[in-house]
Amino acid sequence: MDVGGTKVLGVVLDPTGRVVAEQREPTPATGLAALEAVAEVVGALVGEQGPDAPVRAVGVGAPGLVDRAGILRFAANLRDAGGLDVGREVGRRIGGLPVVVENDATAAVAGEWGLGAAAGKSDVVLVTLGTGIGGGLVAGGRLLVGARGFAGEVGHMVVDPNGLPCPCGKRGCWERYASGSGLGRLGREAAEAGLAPALAEMAGGDPEAVRGEHVVRAAADGDREAAEVMAAFGRWLALGLAGVANAFDPELIVLGGGLVAAGETLLAPTRQAFDELIYGADSRPPIPIVPAALGERAGAVGAALLARGRPR
Amino acid sequence: MDVGGTKVLGVVLDPTGRVVAEQREPTPATGLAALEAVAEVVGALVGEQGPDAPVRAVGVGAPGLVDRAGILRFAANLRDAGGLDVGREVGRRIGGLPVVVENDATAAVAGEWGLGAAAGKSDVVLVTLGTGIGGGLVAGGRLLVGARGFAGEVGHMVVDPNGLPCPCGKRGCWERYASGSGLGRLGREAAEAGLAPALAEMAGGDPEAVRGEHVVRAAADGDREAAEVMAAFGRWLALGLAGVANAFDPELIVLGGGLVAAGETLLAPTRQAFDELIYGADSRPPIPIVPAALGERAGAVGAALLARGRPR
Repeated sequence: MDVGGTKVLGVVLDPTGRVVAEQREPTPATGLAALEAVAEVVGALVGEQGPDAPVRAVGVGAPGLVDRAGILRFAANLRDAGGLDVGREVGRRIGGLPVVVENDATAAVAGEWGLGAAAGKSDVVLVTLGTGIGGGLVAGGRLLVGARGFAGEVGHMVVDPNGLPCPCGKRGCWERYASGSGLGRLGREAAEAGLAPALAEMAGGDPEAVRGEHVVRAAADGDREAAEVMAAFGRWLALGLAGVANAFDPELIVLGGGLVAAGETLLAPTRQAFDELIYGADSRPPIPIVPAALGERAGAVGAALLARGRPR
Repeated sequence: MDVGGTKVLGVVLDPTGRVVAEQREPTPATGLAALEAVAEVVGALVGEQGPDAPVRAVGVGAPGLVDRAGILRFAANLRDAGGLDVGREVGRRIGGLPVVVENDATAAVAGEWGLGAAAGKSDVVLVTLGTGIGGGLVAGGRLLVGARGFAGEVGHMVVDPNGLPCPCGKRGCWERYASGSGLGRLGREAAEAGLAPALAEMAGGDPEAVRGEHVVRAAADGDREAAEVMAAFGRWLALGLAGVANAFDPELIVLGGGLVAAGETLLAPTRQAFDELIYGADSRPPIPIVPAALGERAGAVGAALLARGRPR
């Protein structure tokens, strides 16, 4: 199960790691309602599998600070979620199947590391670009979860101390600039300044309605102004990726989240800026930046892998 | 051995971990001259110990990107150092003793973790505040060195994309603000603006001669303007520490480098700002920020521990 900013996505993995079933629901606004949605999706999947291929354990990727006991301590984008014992509450609602809970981006890196773009690597940074930015880390051949389980919150690295206010209470957090929402904002700014007529047109003539997907589509179609917005976005994204890579020295950076469907329209400007921004660029091997091979399923697949025991 | 920005410091550890001898020399400007200085200090220490308590192995903490083979790939503050095989070159000059080479801040965290403020912890961030900012990391009970050995370069995290130029080629790197040099700059700016007469006076009446140590001394003496400079510095320091702690979720942050001698004058404003800046502050246990227990010797002691085999 992956509790994302917009949807609760569940998959069933067979013993070989293949996805054999999938269900989704919109993510509700509160923690308790999200638990109910998770339980519903699990129930539907368990019913669909039937008694011949029983579901044996459930993994949940939750959006926020998940402690080592599986309790959601803080979730910026889910109301009244602090303190929820996700494992116990979901378990109670689904007839007592074992439930493992982890941060959603940590689940995503577990998925990509186990069965995706980072298979066989020992040092990996995964960054999910959605409403915010999440981070999942593999270091020295192990998942890095931190002392309390809270590692990977790279989205709240400050990249401009006088920058945009963030719901977290600070200013200039990286996710204000380099998330899916950040791309939408860059597009709206360009459209509102009259610099990107194609974007406003795509949004039905209303510059305030421009979203990230409009920028991606216009840039992919060859619109020069939209390509400039993507280049600016790629620089913001690369700025934070370089900071994280300076700290972790990964072999590989994996990008996840809906935005990654943009492909080279996103990756090309990001890679170019990253190669200029990483420390000691001329003295180290390049660090590839690749899209999540499991796409939007990375978190759900990783949560399932964690439910069967830590990968590797 | 610790090759610092200003001095090459060597210590001898006895089998119990006690420092039984110490020597230092100024750090020369080039990589090759630094190797010679290291070899000289080792030679002096070996001679001092004599045949009854022979030195058996040498560890070197080097300022820059040290790869997993011990080769210094990049050093921003040491000329012509890229590509130096420090282990082989030092070994050749000291009669073939085994030499282990590691990044200086990684050596420092090995020292504090083995014999200092971080003993017994499993997730630790150490940050050295000197000419620049170095980082050493322990995660999940192991030294974190990264895929190539380059992990921990937190000083070049960008905290202001339009900020001060950095010798690394970028703008607004954290170490431009929160290192020892950064404190000196904040002090000079205040003095040059006529805002801190006590600082200019301490620097012989010349605002351009103000250095970090003047700010620390004046603030400790109760000068209000100097205390304001320390508060601004503490915010810059905490800004980056919070970013690193968001990513790693350490149990403890250890500060090293000469500046740490400032004690509470530095620590109090840093802790206050950090507690406001860490993500989810109200939902997690506080992360203590403490000075390196081994002081300026942390790097040399840690290098010696690494020479006897990875600590723990």
